[in-house]
Parts: sequence; C-alpha cells; structure tokens
Amino acid sequence: MYRKGLRCDRMNFLEERIVRDGIVAEGNVLKVDSFLNHQIDVELLDQFADELYKKYKDAGINKILTIEASGIAIASSVARVFKTPLVFAKKSKSVNLSGDVYASTITSFTYKKEYQVMVSKKFIGPEDNVLIVDDFLATGNAMLGLIDICETAGTKISGIGICIEKGYQGGRKEIEDRGYDVTSIAIVESMNAADGSIVFK
Amino acid sequence: MYRKGLRCDRMNFLEERIVRDGIVAEGNVLKVDSFLNHQIDVELLDQFADELYKKYKDAGINKILTIEASGIAIASSVARVFKTPLVFAKKSKSVNLSGDVYASTITSFTYKKEYQVMVSKKFIGPEDNVLIVDDFLATGNAMLGLIDICETAGTKISGIGICIEKGYQGGRKEIEDRGYDVTSIAIVESMNAADGSIVFK
Repeated sequence: MYRKGLRCDRMNFLEERIVRDGIVAEGNVLKVDSFLNHQIDVELLDQFADELYKKYKDAGINKILTIEASGIAIASSVARVFKTPLVFAKKSKSVNLSGDVYASTITSFTYKKEYQVMVSKKFIGPEDNVLIVDDFLATGNAMLGLIDICETAGTKISGIGICIEKGYQGGRKEIEDRGYDVTSIAIVESMNAADGSIVFK
Repeated sequence: MYRKGLRCDRMNFLEERIVRDGIVAEGNVLKVDSFLNHQIDVELLDQFADELYKKYKDAGINKILTIEASGIAIASSVARVFKTPLVFAKKSKSVNLSGDVYASTITSFTYKKEYQVMVSKKFIGPEDNVLIVDDFLATGNAMLGLIDICETAGTKISGIGICIEKGYQGGRKEIEDRGYDVTSIAIVESMNAADGSIVFK
C-alpha cells in the first residue's frame, strides 16, 4: 500500500507519478488530470510508448488506434516510436451515421450515458494491424467498442496498451476472453479515498 | 492556383500535403482527415512543431494550450520540442460549471451550435506563458474562446500557431486586433469544390 507522497523502489515510472500527483477521490475516481488527461506530461507518455515498443516492436503494427479525447496524446507518443499514423475514434451521441464509418455503442462509466464511437472506413480495414491504446481500462466498455470496430473491419489487433488499469473492474478479463493481449503499465488493485492510499498489483 | 495532384516548388511541407491528400468539398470544407484530424501523421506534426520552435523558442513559453480533440496531437508534438506540458481545453454543452474552471462560450462553424470550453484553474494562471495551437483557424471563434480564458486567468499568450488558416474568414484579424501574434503554416486564400483547386497565400 502506498500513501500519497510515499514511494517504493519497486514502483515503475507511472506508478511513482500516480502516487506523487494522482488523487484518489470518492466514487472510485483516480484523478490524474495534472499529468495524463487534462494537463499532459509528454515525456511521461514517451516513456509509456517506449515500454509498448519493447513488447510489440516485432508485431508488424502499422497503425495506432485510440479514442478521443485523452487517448490522442498517448497515441501520438506511441505512433512516433512505431513510425506509424494514429487514428482516433470519434465520439458522438448521434445515431445518424453514414455508411462510411464503422461504429459501436458504448456506455461511459464516467459520464453515465451511452454514446457512439466511430472510425471512418477509409482509415481502418483488413490490411491494418493495430495497437490500441488508451489512458484508462476499467470495465472495458470503451475498449470493447474499439474491438468491435476492428473486428467488423477485419483489422488485426496485435495488442492493447493501457496507462492505468483498474484491476478490480473486470475489463481485462472481458478483453482477454475475446482473445486479445492487454499490457497495462500501472494496475491499481485497490484504492481508498479516505486516506488516499493506492495498492498496485 | 494548385489543382489536386499538382505541386509547385514554392509550397512548404504542409501545403504540399494539403494538395496531395486534402479534399476540397462543397460548403467551404477542406477535408484533411487522412493526415490531420482523424488519421494523423505524427511526423508532419513534428515538422509543424519545429517551425513554431524556430519562431518562439526564446519567448519563455512554459505551456502549450489547445482545444480537444484534433488540437491534442498537434499540441503533443509542439510540447515535446518546447519541453513543456500541454493543456487541452475541454468542450461541454453543460453550463453547470464549477468555480474550479475558466470557461468561455464559443460557436462552432462545423457543427453549427454553441458550446463551452473550459480549463481547470489548476492548470492555467498568471504564472503561465502559453503558445496556443490548433489545426484550423477560420472565423477564429474557438481561438477567441481560448484567448478569453487566458485573459481571465491572467496568462500571457506569446503566440498562436495554426496548421491551416482559411485566410478569407477573418479569424486572423480578430486575433491580431486583440494584440496577439498568429503563425499559420498554410494559409488558404481561396478554394473551389468544383475543380478541387486551392490557392495559398
């Protein structure tokens, strides 16, 4: 267990940053908006990208896929080391989708509503081999939406790279049950808003 | 005048890319979604960042500010060369803003609706000196919203860096009249959906 401000030599760069600058709030909320999803530390994301590159560099990945908005900066760092384009899925509440996009409906834990995610058919297809990245994995709903889109498009998914996984919310199992490999740099096993403590796996 | 597929030696890297991969569509639309705002060429954004760095490297900039979603990848490249964090303003249709954010109401040309943009007070203030970046400058509404936020926060704006400016829509004048410096890498003087032609300034 790590309380805010304390550190342990066995933590990796992202776990250390979460302990230093993250805030555990009521309602299962881990606020990391000072370095990951409102103000963004690009150097931290480049470290994340290097970790994913070590694991997936020989997988033949030709595109990095993410979802707006906070995934985009992450995908940008990852696309740079893989020397590929990135594609970000757009969110919309509209159901008036043209035939030119692949779409999936997902439910947001944070905003407690349903929305569509979509990717133009021009930018994803059977010739593509993607690494999907995002800031958080919790229940996995957003990620399963992206997986649906890739499966419909016939796109190969070589792996899924996550900055922070809430390990107690089941998202990993849902994704692994679909046959995909998940790499999370920080896995939160539990956290406690009362004293601000976090336990990493 | 440059027709799609043609190029001219005097074009810069971004103008060349627009001529090669952009599509002029009806309704004053320049589609650049294959390299700038849906699928993204990170190397192109890094070139954009290098251009801005040449101009603003001695300006004392300590933060790159942009607006979600398509500005984020651009800001990520720029923040990397300036070795600063980036902050992206969030969009919301809600007016239920807490006192913890600076907010401004802007009107979207693309979506023909009003929305709020906001930045947490934690991440922008009188101690900051920002370079604001975005993919497009047209009427300048979105940019003026970011300027409002900075002025309210007492934040210095050292410059505004734009990938593609629609030079005939007046945004630059609005911003320059407020006293700020605008750097656009490609300025479209006119474009014609009938034959796909673009004239750059």
